[in-house]
Amino acid sequence: MAEAIRIIGIDPGLQRTGWGVIETIGTSLKFVGAGTLRSDARTELASRLCQLHDGLSEIIHAMMPNEAAVEQTFVNKDAVATLKLGQARGIALLVPARAGLQVAEYAPNAVKKSVIGVGHGDKAQIRMMVSMLLPKAKFDSDDAADALAIAICHAHHRGAIALQRRIAGAG
Amino acid sequence: MAEAIRIIGIDPGLQRTGWGVIETIGTSLKFVGAGTLRSDARTELASRLCQLHDGLSEIIHAMMPNEAAVEQTFVNKDAVATLKLGQARGIALLVPARAGLQVAEYAPNAVKKSVIGVGHGDKAQIRMMVSMLLPKAKFDSDDAADALAIAICHAHHRGAIALQRRIAGAG
Repeated sequence: MAEAIRIIGIDPGLQRTGWGVIETIGTSLKFVGAGTLRSDARTELASRLCQLHDGLSEIIHAMMPNEAAVEQTFVNKDAVATLKLGQARGIALLVPARAGLQVAEYAPNAVKKSVIGVGHGDKAQIRMMVSMLLPKAKFDSDDAADALAIAICHAHHRGAIALQRRIAGAG
Repeated sequence: MAEAIRIIGIDPGLQRTGWGVIETIGTSLKFVGAGTLRSDARTELASRLCQLHDGLSEIIHAMMPNEAAVEQTFVNKDAVATLKLGQARGIALLVPARAGLQVAEYAPNAVKKSVIGVGHGDKAQIRMMVSMLLPKAKFDSDDAADALAIAICHAHHRGAIALQRRIAGAG
């Protein structure tokens, strides 16, 4: 019998960070939980990053995922926004890595391809496909839906990644 | 007699993060320590952020600063570099904040103004002025010298910041 693997997907952002946890057994997927972490915009940046750190730590502690996947932030033309996103993303990568999880990264178009079937599509399409692939899924924001999509993307790719690691290790 | 305050300055970067610790008593400044944290470019991003996190945590534990100051990263035109810097900067803000320190942020031209006297100048000028202001300073990189300059900048500004906080608290 195939082993159940819990995956946490994270869609990082300073204002809102989405998270979603699924379980994959062989080729089947199961919804475990999802939600949105918000940081208080009235507090200082360092304090907001602490809020994000503590929230994510708590979720990983409660959900006990085996692996993590984080969206490769889209680099847009707004350098100030890119820097903010980078800061939140640093925390989103740090927390699962410090908890001993392997952290995979996926580009937004790889995530879309995994859930929609093509590398482009809007938020509504992602929500709809996440609900089809995980019928019991409940999510409170687009960021939480995106996080579930990232987890699904990792569920699809993790076999190939594990194989690559084994080949690299044996080579 | 005025109280001695230890300040850690941090110049964040994914490849190299400079740190410098000084002590300020009234208007006098004293060098305590400085150095450069390097992350292994052959390892994954999440692991490099862990290396930065653990290195900074160790330094704060050993040096016991009372306050922290981090450079406000220059936002250049290269979005990929800005994102990388953002990720490292997220860690540089998180670690002192989680250790309970107030974390101040200064723009590069404010730092230069504090040590050189004007808002522009090259790395050689910063190194020279840091050596004049802190005659016993030893630093192993431009990043460590920059970090000391950031700490000096905070030493110059912290009185005004504390006053603002007192006014805001009393208001």
